[in-house]
Amino acid sequence: MIQTPYLLFLGDAPDPLAAKVAQGIKDWRPDNAVGQFRMDGCKADLGLADMTLQEAKAAGAKTLVIGVANRGGVISQAWKKVLVMALEEGFDLASGLHNLLRDEPDLVAVAEATGRNLFDVRVPAVEYPIANGKKRTGKRVLAVGTDCSVGKMYTGLCIDREMRERGMKSTFRATGQTGILITGDGVPLDAVIADFMAGSIEYLTPDNDPDHWDIIEGQGSLFHVSYSGVTMALIHGGQPDALILSHEPTRAHMRGLPEYQLPSLQQVADMALPLAQVANPDCKVVGISVNTQNMSEAEARDYLAKVEAEMGLPATDPFRFGAGKLVDALEAI
Amino acid sequence: MIQTPYLLFLGDAPDPLAAKVAQGIKDWRPDNAVGQFRMDGCKADLGLADMTLQEAKAAGAKTLVIGVANRGGVISQAWKKVLVMALEEGFDLASGLHNLLRDEPDLVAVAEATGRNLFDVRVPAVEYPIANGKKRTGKRVLAVGTDCSVGKMYTGLCIDREMRERGMKSTFRATGQTGILITGDGVPLDAVIADFMAGSIEYLTPDNDPDHWDIIEGQGSLFHVSYSGVTMALIHGGQPDALILSHEPTRAHMRGLPEYQLPSLQQVADMALPLAQVANPDCKVVGISVNTQNMSEAEARDYLAKVEAEMGLPATDPFRFGAGKLVDALEAI
Repeated sequence: MIQTPYLLFLGDAPDPLAAKVAQGIKDWRPDNAVGQFRMDGCKADLGLADMTLQEAKAAGAKTLVIGVANRGGVISQAWKKVLVMALEEGFDLASGLHNLLRDEPDLVAVAEATGRNLFDVRVPAVEYPIANGKKRTGKRVLAVGTDCSVGKMYTGLCIDREMRERGMKSTFRATGQTGILITGDGVPLDAVIADFMAGSIEYLTPDNDPDHWDIIEGQGSLFHVSYSGVTMALIHGGQPDALILSHEPTRAHMRGLPEYQLPSLQQVADMALPLAQVANPDCKVVGISVNTQNMSEAEARDYLAKVEAEMGLPATDPFRFGAGKLVDALEAI
Repeated sequence: MIQTPYLLFLGDAPDPLAAKVAQGIKDWRPDNAVGQFRMDGCKADLGLADMTLQEAKAAGAKTLVIGVANRGGVISQAWKKVLVMALEEGFDLASGLHNLLRDEPDLVAVAEATGRNLFDVRVPAVEYPIANGKKRTGKRVLAVGTDCSVGKMYTGLCIDREMRERGMKSTFRATGQTGILITGDGVPLDAVIADFMAGSIEYLTPDNDPDHWDIIEGQGSLFHVSYSGVTMALIHGGQPDALILSHEPTRAHMRGLPEYQLPSLQQVADMALPLAQVANPDCKVVGISVNTQNMSEAEARDYLAKVEAEMGLPATDPFRFGAGKLVDALEAI
């Protein structure tokens, strides 16, 4: 588990989008974000206090999180200088970069010499078990999508925030690199060995209080032929009590698969629910999350009303209009 | 790809069952089995000529295949002596053992010195692509089971043999360690990284002649919560034109999951077919393979007749009664 709070490293980000991981941490776990560290030429700004390593250390930061994409897949010497100094100052380092911290001999050597940790959240740090399918206590909800990248992580984070605001017991369970850096923990499911996928999700969502909700971050889609096996492992390893259907209505085809059309929400429900009921016979589809970022507010509200009427389920864009309807439905279980 | 033919190493097998991989090679690819190598105290005998390394080399053997389970998860010094001598004589080594040849420094050193190869079929040797879902030429059939270990590999090997006997174009595509050692090639799907599972199956079953059949070895079950993600990747990566349902009727519960009952054949069909049609809208369920090894012949024939009547599909135990009915159904596509 990555030690919080963080100093967010924005490096020499060429634009704000390059720092979207740092932005996610600041948006979703502001208490984890003590400050930002920007190098000369950085074009991103989270609106946090700019801090030196020493200032951040004094403010309590434990880990320097690389919250920015690097250029050209190389950790530059300019970055290295900051990262090495951070280790020397007593920070751990955490990264979701494709090129791993552990593959950089200088960082490894300094981390060993200083007794600090390097967290590469792209690769599993745990030997996960084979799933055993045993019924666990506590409640779990999983978003299943018509496609990849339709807003399943944001849906989960919105539900988690709403539950916390209501005083409910809730934990967002990250299954992707961005989610892991936001929360400090999770399973990088796309990098897990096939036989251990479902077991990794059981490990991530253990027995809990009967009134506690695990909000499991969804991945892929049963209808996305590249990644459907990952989705399947979430459905069976997660043993969800509730499914939320996730959709982005303006997409022309499945992400990365120009020959494939998106399924309807009904098709996703008809496929996912019987599969989920193998692991949890009481599982229900309780609501719909629509990513309306490419629609005007009027279009979005019309679309949501139409979906609610067609599906007979509460539908919202939880990021735009709040997750209240979805949490109402979950609370009713 | 592992060079054939093989000398089959039976070591000091404590009983015939310990040599089941070697038995599978001899049963299914007799042309690949030049002879057997047995050590003092070996209790297995495939009925092949016992050969020294030199005799096998003279007879054309290219690879020494470890066709036997080792005791206690350790490659003993007695084995090592034979394996090292085999490398010195010019053999490659191939193994499906859990403890890898590549983790034995002496074997690695001798293999490097002699320019020979060590094949550990437990681990992928290829960087597989992400699946792209593009329609491929040629035909593919996949067995999907009510459970793990119900006879999917044998079903595929029986279909492949029957097709070859009829002069049809057919390739058995191994997706597990035993199948890979039998055929010399394949994908160890249970050890592939999650994101690349479906891509590994696309890689395994590329474009082919329009009248060529890839017989894809099935794995797991959509109803087995530990491994369903692997099954899902086979269904979408394999893009099958035809599904065969596989079942073992005497099992009390899902393998390794005492809390889970087996689904019916109809439930498997209802779940697998719509999922398969995502990748191949023309996919059909064409027949049923029943593993009747725990039934008398009369019981088996009664059961198969009942299944045929209930499901309206040809049903056979292909290992006991031949795969003719299944190949008839595939030929009709």
